Amino acid sequence: MAGTDIRPIPAEGIEHWDHEADVVIAGFGIAGVAAAIGAAESGADVLVLERTGGGGGAAALSGGIVYLGGGTRLQKACGIDDTPENMKTFLAAALGPGVDEQKLDAYCDGSVAHFEWLEACGVPYKDAFWNQPGWEIPNDDSLMYSGGENAAPFSTLVDPAPRGHLAQVPMPRKGEQGAGHVLMTTLIAKAGELGVRIETDVRMQRLVTDTDGRVVGLVTTRFGKQVAVRARKGVILATGSFAYNDEMMQAYAPRLYKRPAATVEEHDGRGILVAQALGAGLAHMDACEVAFFCDPQLMARGILVNGRGQRYVQEDTYPGRIGQLTLFENDNQAFLVIDQKSYEEGMAAPSSSPQLKRQPTWVCETVDELESEMGLPSGSLTSTVAEYNRHAAEGSDPVLGKKPEWVAPIGSPVAAIDLRGNTGGFTLGGLRTTVDSEVLHVDGTPIPGLYAAGRCTSGLSAFGYCSGISLGDGSFFGRKAGIHAATS
Amino acid sequence: MAGTDIRPIPAEGIEHWDHEADVVIAGFGIAGVAAAIGAAESGADVLVLERTGGGGGAAALSGGIVYLGGGTRLQKACGIDDTPENMKTFLAAALGPGVDEQKLDAYCDGSVAHFEWLEACGVPYKDAFWNQPGWEIPNDDSLMYSGGENAAPFSTLVDPAPRGHLAQVPMPRKGEQGAGHVLMTTLIAKAGELGVRIETDVRMQRLVTDTDGRVVGLVTTRFGKQVAVRARKGVILATGSFAYNDEMMQAYAPRLYKRPAATVEEHDGRGILVAQALGAGLAHMDACEVAFFCDPQLMARGILVNGRGQRYVQEDTYPGRIGQLTLFENDNQAFLVIDQKSYEEGMAAPSSSPQLKRQPTWVCETVDELESEMGLPSGSLTSTVAEYNRHAAEGSDPVLGKKPEWVAPIGSPVAAIDLRGNTGGFTLGGLRTTVDSEVLHVDGTPIPGLYAAGRCTSGLSAFGYCSGISLGDGSFFGRKAGIHAATS
Repeated sequence: MAGTDIRPIPAEGIEHWDHEADVVIAGFGIAGVAAAIGAAESGADVLVLERTGGGGGAAALSGGIVYLGGGTRLQKACGIDDTPENMKTFLAAALGPGVDEQKLDAYCDGSVAHFEWLEACGVPYKDAFWNQPGWEIPNDDSLMYSGGENAAPFSTLVDPAPRGHLAQVPMPRKGEQGAGHVLMTTLIAKAGELGVRIETDVRMQRLVTDTDGRVVGLVTTRFGKQVAVRARKGVILATGSFAYNDEMMQAYAPRLYKRPAATVEEHDGRGILVAQALGAGLAHMDACEVAFFCDPQLMARGILVNGRGQRYVQEDTYPGRIGQLTLFENDNQAFLVIDQKSYEEGMAAPSSSPQLKRQPTWVCETVDELESEMGLPSGSLTSTVAEYNRHAAEGSDPVLGKKPEWVAPIGSPVAAIDLRGNTGGFTLGGLRTTVDSEVLHVDGTPIPGLYAAGRCTSGLSAFGYCSGISLGDGSFFGRKAGIHAATS
Repeated sequence: MAGTDIRPIPAEGIEHWDHEADVVIAGFGIAGVAAAIGAAESGADVLVLERTGGGGGAAALSGGIVYLGGGTRLQKACGIDDTPENMKTFLAAALGPGVDEQKLDAYCDGSVAHFEWLEACGVPYKDAFWNQPGWEIPNDDSLMYSGGENAAPFSTLVDPAPRGHLAQVPMPRKGEQGAGHVLMTTLIAKAGELGVRIETDVRMQRLVTDTDGRVVGLVTTRFGKQVAVRARKGVILATGSFAYNDEMMQAYAPRLYKRPAATVEEHDGRGILVAQALGAGLAHMDACEVAFFCDPQLMARGILVNGRGQRYVQEDTYPGRIGQLTLFENDNQAFLVIDQKSYEEGMAAPSSSPQLKRQPTWVCETVDELESEMGLPSGSLTSTVAEYNRHAAEGSDPVLGKKPEWVAPIGSPVAAIDLRGNTGGFTLGGLRTTVDSEVLHVDGTPIPGLYAAGRCTSGLSAFGYCSGISLGDGSFFGRKAGIHAATS
């Protein structure tokens, strides 16, 4: 970012305001659209500035999972019991330590109503629960496990409930358009119905402040020309993560440097930087969603070992947890060891990620040969498999607690899939905000007129992750930002 | 920090300057004293503001290791071969990924001269190499391994050299006064000789800026009364880490929340926050030094296993690496498994940390019994020990590469020491600075008049650590800050 000027500009320096609205929102992804609807529903005149040619952002390309629970209408329709307390207990364990307790409470207590609001906005959901391991859902069902709630160690801590809520997709699917596309087109249409104005191809550059330090607008560029936008009530930053800002990645999340996934290149961290230039504080800048590029239907049926030939994760858990533990705790070294019978079952099992049905790297008659082919330390894998098989013969997994349905002794022939370095992801850290999405100065007070939500903020995750947390906290705290800015 | 005002104050609001100097330094620990000497040697009139009743800070209480190499006079006198290139290769691996390459180059290339400067300042070193596992040195020798250079995996990457340089301590030792005390009293005396003025019991509160945004002073309090200090050439922040700021620890380093070690309670992060309020950027806020509370002489002679009964680290490496891998990669779960013979040898071995000669938690005749007593998953530890012993009988450790001199089959009786949760530490992240210790705004330009060094900055560590890196980069970049501020 060196050389670009991201410092605030005084309002008296603006000779002409090109646009004006009560609430001005930078970015039209999930947080931006939720903020726009929230502000418009609160009676505000709303203008959204979108950097690309149209709305949607990373959300439209995503799997479209929104993490919600505590007894939503969809959960109940699928016969799932859940409470806000169970949801809090799970998320505190899965996303922590260091979770923002106030945000977690607000989110879990408001989750049922937030789902009602999504449905009221027109997002379609089908009352059907997809109970299979996977990153997403391959058919048009709408509810799934998306955080390892039903796998050890969390399943022993609190009663599991699936909380991944996916918009129902039209069948047969059209190309890559999944639940994220349905979610975003529906919400963008709703914003339009409410009279939200949108300016596209407008790139946020700097915040504008008055003499009291209040944020009163934005300076942007459109095809290189400066466009000044006045915000009568508030500016909302919804500009996404810093996954594509090399300097910030090196400084905060170097293990994912140059390996973005499930993100878009507009996520350059600028929304974070313009607020930092006003003294805004940060949180959890090292936290990352980590995708792991292997089909969960294969992983659950084998064992994952690290570079020392040791198991290190429940293979039947949320694959993003596998990704995090692989990247952050096992030096990005992973191998899936699986016998032929289980491999064939896994390949035949339904999956939303057919491109992750990986081919074996090595196939051998014995584990001893396999270990040697893989170049693992002598005796390491054979020892691990022997120990696993001894318990698996009784259907148990005392070391990691994989569910009995996925436990079976590893037979012959046996294969290994080389999954070293098979991770990518996006960042979860960002601006510190209040539960009303006000951006906090490092002195602990809100910066007047400035709000933020989505992945330019630190939301619910302190380190861990579940799929749906970003669309979840982005839409929930985005809506809060819109309401608060409109009514402040 | 909510409720405290840490924002900059305009110079025109200062009616009376209580003190004035060319260079004003906040904090009289290692970075502050090096900055003071550097500035004074460059001809500046220097004033140090120290929050407590006297200088020294965390450095005076520390082990006093300064990480230096590339062929220092002391290394040569001890017959050690080293080059700046080897030092860089090692540190890039041990401290990265994400290391600031410019800082690393400057530090390694300037390391020999920096040691000369320390000696010229009067710091005494004894030409003797202590080649034993340990946190520090129990006698008055001055050179040791302090980063795992001679242990796998680093020893296979680059020729190892010891780089921990400790001031020679008077023998017999007086109480707790170790090499850190010698280092700091010597440097503080040198600063005094150079005419550096010191004001104690002065607490830095806010930075003072002129209308151009240049930092021109500090507002402080002394026994509750405001004291304004003008800096004609520059202000240097040398205020230490944020290990005692609960809010920052929760936001950036939650795994060490409420568990500080090797730090002092003045390390409240305020130096970071006052610069953030000016738009300063941060780096590597999650990085932490992690102390592990067990004598390395015991650890090297046993095997360390995690909560799954698996080995995860070379037991003969730098104990701070063991601490980091335990806390960050193994859920803070560790047990040392050691047989009676090795335990007795370890207890009898010389150590600078006799309080870390831990007693066994469990003692059994067989590993099978021990595993059961420890509550580990059935078969997990027995499998690990069987595999270890099989190779140890041949003097090798193919899984982790512990050096042959520490490898021996684990016999009977066998003990385990419960080391779960036995970590503490301090933070390594902080302000982004240039190689000249200018504080960088988030737009990539230096903030005029503002410098920082030591643990309120992100120095050499991007995540990993070696003992002596904090006194090393603190003194090296502290001195740079002093010289640059004095001559700017």
